[in-house]
Amino acid sequence: MPKDRFTITAVDKSLDAVIQNTLDNKTKPPGSLGHLEAVAAQVARIQQSLSPQLSRLNHCVFAADHGVCEEGVSPYPSEVTRQMVLNFMAGGAAINVFCRQQDVRLTVVDAGLNGEPLPAHPNLIEAKLGHGSANFMRQPAMSHEQYQQAVNKAAEIVEMQLAEGADILSFGEMGIGNTTSGAALMAACLKLDPVDCVGAGTGADPALIDHKVTVVREALALHQAGLTSGCAIMQHLGGFELAMMAGAMAATAELDKPFIVDGFLATAALLTVWYDHPEILDYALFSHASGEHGHHRMLETLGVRPLLQLNLRLGEGTGAVLAWPLIRAAVAMLDEMASFDSAGVDTAGGD
Amino acid sequence: MPKDRFTITAVDKSLDAVIQNTLDNKTKPPGSLGHLEAVAAQVARIQQSLSPQLSRLNHCVFAADHGVCEEGVSPYPSEVTRQMVLNFMAGGAAINVFCRQQDVRLTVVDAGLNGEPLPAHPNLIEAKLGHGSANFMRQPAMSHEQYQQAVNKAAEIVEMQLAEGADILSFGEMGIGNTTSGAALMAACLKLDPVDCVGAGTGADPALIDHKVTVVREALALHQAGLTSGCAIMQHLGGFELAMMAGAMAATAELDKPFIVDGFLATAALLTVWYDHPEILDYALFSHASGEHGHHRMLETLGVRPLLQLNLRLGEGTGAVLAWPLIRAAVAMLDEMASFDSAGVDTAGGD
Repeated sequence: MPKDRFTITAVDKSLDAVIQNTLDNKTKPPGSLGHLEAVAAQVARIQQSLSPQLSRLNHCVFAADHGVCEEGVSPYPSEVTRQMVLNFMAGGAAINVFCRQQDVRLTVVDAGLNGEPLPAHPNLIEAKLGHGSANFMRQPAMSHEQYQQAVNKAAEIVEMQLAEGADILSFGEMGIGNTTSGAALMAACLKLDPVDCVGAGTGADPALIDHKVTVVREALALHQAGLTSGCAIMQHLGGFELAMMAGAMAATAELDKPFIVDGFLATAALLTVWYDHPEILDYALFSHASGEHGHHRMLETLGVRPLLQLNLRLGEGTGAVLAWPLIRAAVAMLDEMASFDSAGVDTAGGD
Repeated sequence: MPKDRFTITAVDKSLDAVIQNTLDNKTKPPGSLGHLEAVAAQVARIQQSLSPQLSRLNHCVFAADHGVCEEGVSPYPSEVTRQMVLNFMAGGAAINVFCRQQDVRLTVVDAGLNGEPLPAHPNLIEAKLGHGSANFMRQPAMSHEQYQQAVNKAAEIVEMQLAEGADILSFGEMGIGNTTSGAALMAACLKLDPVDCVGAGTGADPALIDHKVTVVREALALHQAGLTSGCAIMQHLGGFELAMMAGAMAATAELDKPFIVDGFLATAALLTVWYDHPEILDYALFSHASGEHGHHRMLETLGVRPLLQLNLRLGEGTGAVLAWPLIRAAVAMLDEMASFDSAGVDTAGGD
């Protein structure tokens, strides 16, 4: 895997001063819309426009099973991955409720569930890369070819979403066992001790957390020589849904579009792209800061602050869809608000 | 002013265990929707329903001028209050953008602007209680009769909003100088030193903050004997828009409907009702925690945690309208999500 697999270009910063000046002339005390101003500026920069527009979010949930579940890393049985995907297709999960409410198109991708293919469904993309990833305590989570297929298929899916009219994308995941994989990706990308990366996931008790730490530590030792790039880290320690998610983020950035990064697993997937291509951050909007200490650490390293802190720990990309109205509000503010001049409003000290 | 002016009944808590059980049986790890679960439970309790519904938010911005501006408490001239109200009517302010985006009906109330009545406008209610409140450094901010008119008119406005089909209300304010009034209300209700209550408002520098502290301290000393109830505190130290906002919150609770409390000034107005009727908290949803240390202190005293922390300091109730999609999402989650049983999904430890 060449290090330059993705072609991600840093966003041109030459408009930044003009964008800031436009924000400061809106009819409000300068800076008084806080983090929304930063989001508006980032989208303006990506679109190279003082009247940025975002009208359509499409959300993809990538789902896969994890061989590392053999090690007993989750309180939930692997079967729940498939059951939850069926729940997504029936419209009963949290992500369905939030997408319906915000008129967000939801696509579910079978990136590698155990068992038979799922029944066809208009919202389902069948892209099975295997029947669960391999147990990375024993061998790489996926082959080089599977990894390549994952990112290629993800790029195809991204192109399809944008062709449908989406101008911003977000990504969620479902995969019992995947917080162990996410912690391993984080430890490898940031060169941290697993203790700083492993958290409770969907409800591990302290003993299970200790066990997850041991699993990650042994996996890192086993694969150490192969972890030479972000892509290689994903191939060895990731999962099919996480590899596709990382590929989808990279493909979105390659096409100069923004995407929303939600929570621990999406941030871990992003890290594997960032490791080789730090400029991907220019395109990433962060939705939710989870309570997991590992997530806090990742966000700090990246120097970013998500819009929401709601103690969510559900996955599925729920925080991304919840943050979408705030992102739209930020962009509409820059596009639609009157300036002091146009509204005839005095500024501070103008008495 | 009799202490029992408002008739606010505590919400019946007898359904709480059933509500919690319903939340815990949704297809997600228990508690994994964090603060949204608390919001869903609160609305379920107010509506006494396991399928709560919220479909329509109406937002009212109360605007008035403040006699205390004579003391030089704001970097902005008083004229900005009126200019911003004209901006609201022209659709160019932040609150307009956010209301349009979320399909929230916006009403602007002239509670007591300086100068001539405003030109008629479909979104404007003319309810002028005076040409600005009196300077509370010298005399009560309003007479007993003006206070009474404020709460009566606010109750009328609330009834009108609910009759139009709103099932939840939110309130914003515009009034140059009103953070000094808000700090005075807070200091009186919580019996705190003004230093713990005064903040930067829309952009005061340290010298101006010191001056605001002095103004509040002297006003508290002047009116001390009269500050015998929350109503009396509002009458002496409030402003017309803040008195109407407090009256509107009380009227909404009297009619068993929820309302959204946004930021420092709305929380200060709420305190004056809470001082006499602590059960008003049952109906109050908190949208945004501002960076002002005084706001943090109020929220801590009330034992509440707002949904958003976006470093907003704009007023107008902007945080309330930004939080509305999250509140709707929380309520829809409880109403629409599948249960483990209905979706055939295993629970933790079910392997």
